[in-house]
Amino acid sequence: MAFTTNSTIASFGGTIHKLTHDSSTTRTPMNLNLFIPGTASPSAPSPLLIFLSGLTCTPDNCTEKGFLQAHASRLGLAILYPDTSPRGTDHPGEHADWDFGSSASFYVDATRDPWSSNYNMESYVAEELPRLLSLHFAQLDTRRVSISGHSMGGHGALTLFLRYPGRYRSVSAFSPVCNPSRCPWGEKAFAGYLGGDREEWKRHDATELVRSWEGSLNCLIDVGTADPFYKGGQLLPENFAKAVEEAGVDGPVIRYQKGYDHSYFFVSTFGEDHVKFAAKALGLL
Amino acid sequence: MAFTTNSTIASFGGTIHKLTHDSSTTRTPMNLNLFIPGTASPSAPSPLLIFLSGLTCTPDNCTEKGFLQAHASRLGLAILYPDTSPRGTDHPGEHADWDFGSSASFYVDATRDPWSSNYNMESYVAEELPRLLSLHFAQLDTRRVSISGHSMGGHGALTLFLRYPGRYRSVSAFSPVCNPSRCPWGEKAFAGYLGGDREEWKRHDATELVRSWEGSLNCLIDVGTADPFYKGGQLLPENFAKAVEEAGVDGPVIRYQKGYDHSYFFVSTFGEDHVKFAAKALGLL
Repeated sequence: MAFTTNSTIASFGGTIHKLTHDSSTTRTPMNLNLFIPGTASPSAPSPLLIFLSGLTCTPDNCTEKGFLQAHASRLGLAILYPDTSPRGTDHPGEHADWDFGSSASFYVDATRDPWSSNYNMESYVAEELPRLLSLHFAQLDTRRVSISGHSMGGHGALTLFLRYPGRYRSVSAFSPVCNPSRCPWGEKAFAGYLGGDREEWKRHDATELVRSWEGSLNCLIDVGTADPFYKGGQLLPENFAKAVEEAGVDGPVIRYQKGYDHSYFFVSTFGEDHVKFAAKALGLL
Repeated sequence: MAFTTNSTIASFGGTIHKLTHDSSTTRTPMNLNLFIPGTASPSAPSPLLIFLSGLTCTPDNCTEKGFLQAHASRLGLAILYPDTSPRGTDHPGEHADWDFGSSASFYVDATRDPWSSNYNMESYVAEELPRLLSLHFAQLDTRRVSISGHSMGGHGALTLFLRYPGRYRSVSAFSPVCNPSRCPWGEKAFAGYLGGDREEWKRHDATELVRSWEGSLNCLIDVGTADPFYKGGQLLPENFAKAVEEAGVDGPVIRYQKGYDHSYFFVSTFGEDHVKFAAKALGLL
């Protein structure tokens, strides 16, 4: 078994599996949480929603505070919570800032040393981890996958969806970093992981990627109007909306939720909408 | 205003108020969280569910992980999360153990020095705090109150319900300490707060109190069969059930939930049942 089971926890009629495995992509042990609904079986495998978490998080934060399992269980949907970066590599400066290095991978494959040796979270999330899960969990149908995320993880969800057309049935995001090339968090991360070439940054920026999207885009975004990071210009959903409009892309729904902040209280409040959105795209509704 | 508002957070269409006030009962500043549903107003005030948390907790744990607000919001129910002990008194040994002193009041009025000067959580929860809330939150109807709790807080909910007949419309508990006089947690706490007279302990022990209960008892208890504290003899729900049966008390429902543990994953899974149980007793369903 590629995965070590650290614990299993009953939740909403299903099971949370807390797992660790050695990743060949990050060259580190990686933690993840996997919720499998009680209805899933090898003969009736569950489709999968990948949820990418934000800065400072581990797989546990949304597992404990997002309340997504409540809805996923009812609908027969599995949820994967990967970690937000490799752990334990201790590169110089890796743990100095909360918005760079550990817990802050931005879900790219780094091209700059020393990060490129481990910080390959795009390939890890998009390729290695689903493949490994499909080999070891016959209760999962990893051909039917949607993706979602929060904040930095919203950026990850949007960019992976846009960079791998057809791989995911839908994308949704809570308070996503929509235009990282133009916000302080993204500029710092991209400069560190990808270097100074801003043309390269565009390949990991949802607002730039959506300009060349073809067809409709099955995308739901929620942003809280009292979110200090929204107000502080880290999220820039208006830039994404403008690019969508300019490109004539149909489909994306961006909602501004009055009075909500950036926390998991926001995620949990609108979690049902996002789980149902994915479930519909995955044929469960 | 008796309360200082540290923050307000939008959640499930209502608002979480993070409050601090100076308690005359504990003679310390006390923290609490108060969820008020969006439907509450002075002309249509919400009834109140008091939720008492367990060992090691603050008001935040269940606020963040219990998901009770999701259901309470739909039903028009407010929820009060008091703290689990006074804070900041620094009595000798107060912070030495996780099962005694800070975060471990057991919701009694202590009679032993030095605890008796501050550890008066029974009077605080049953008397002072609801009275203060009624004075300052016209959106609350503090004449309609139910009580619930988890683990040590389940003990608190059961004993306060039984010690103040008619004060609460219903009581429910997740993994409660049902017979504290007979379990290590309770013996340690009662010896420390109340002294060595085991007759006095009985006045704070649900299994003893229920023996003299008159009438039916509107009580719901859930216990997880994989709960290590249940298996380790800290909860003893069978003793409570036996006392209920021997006393011929109608009403209590005790459910054993297969495979569930002691965590908030357990609380959140069955939270809807407990919120609906209170809501029904409070005339909302």
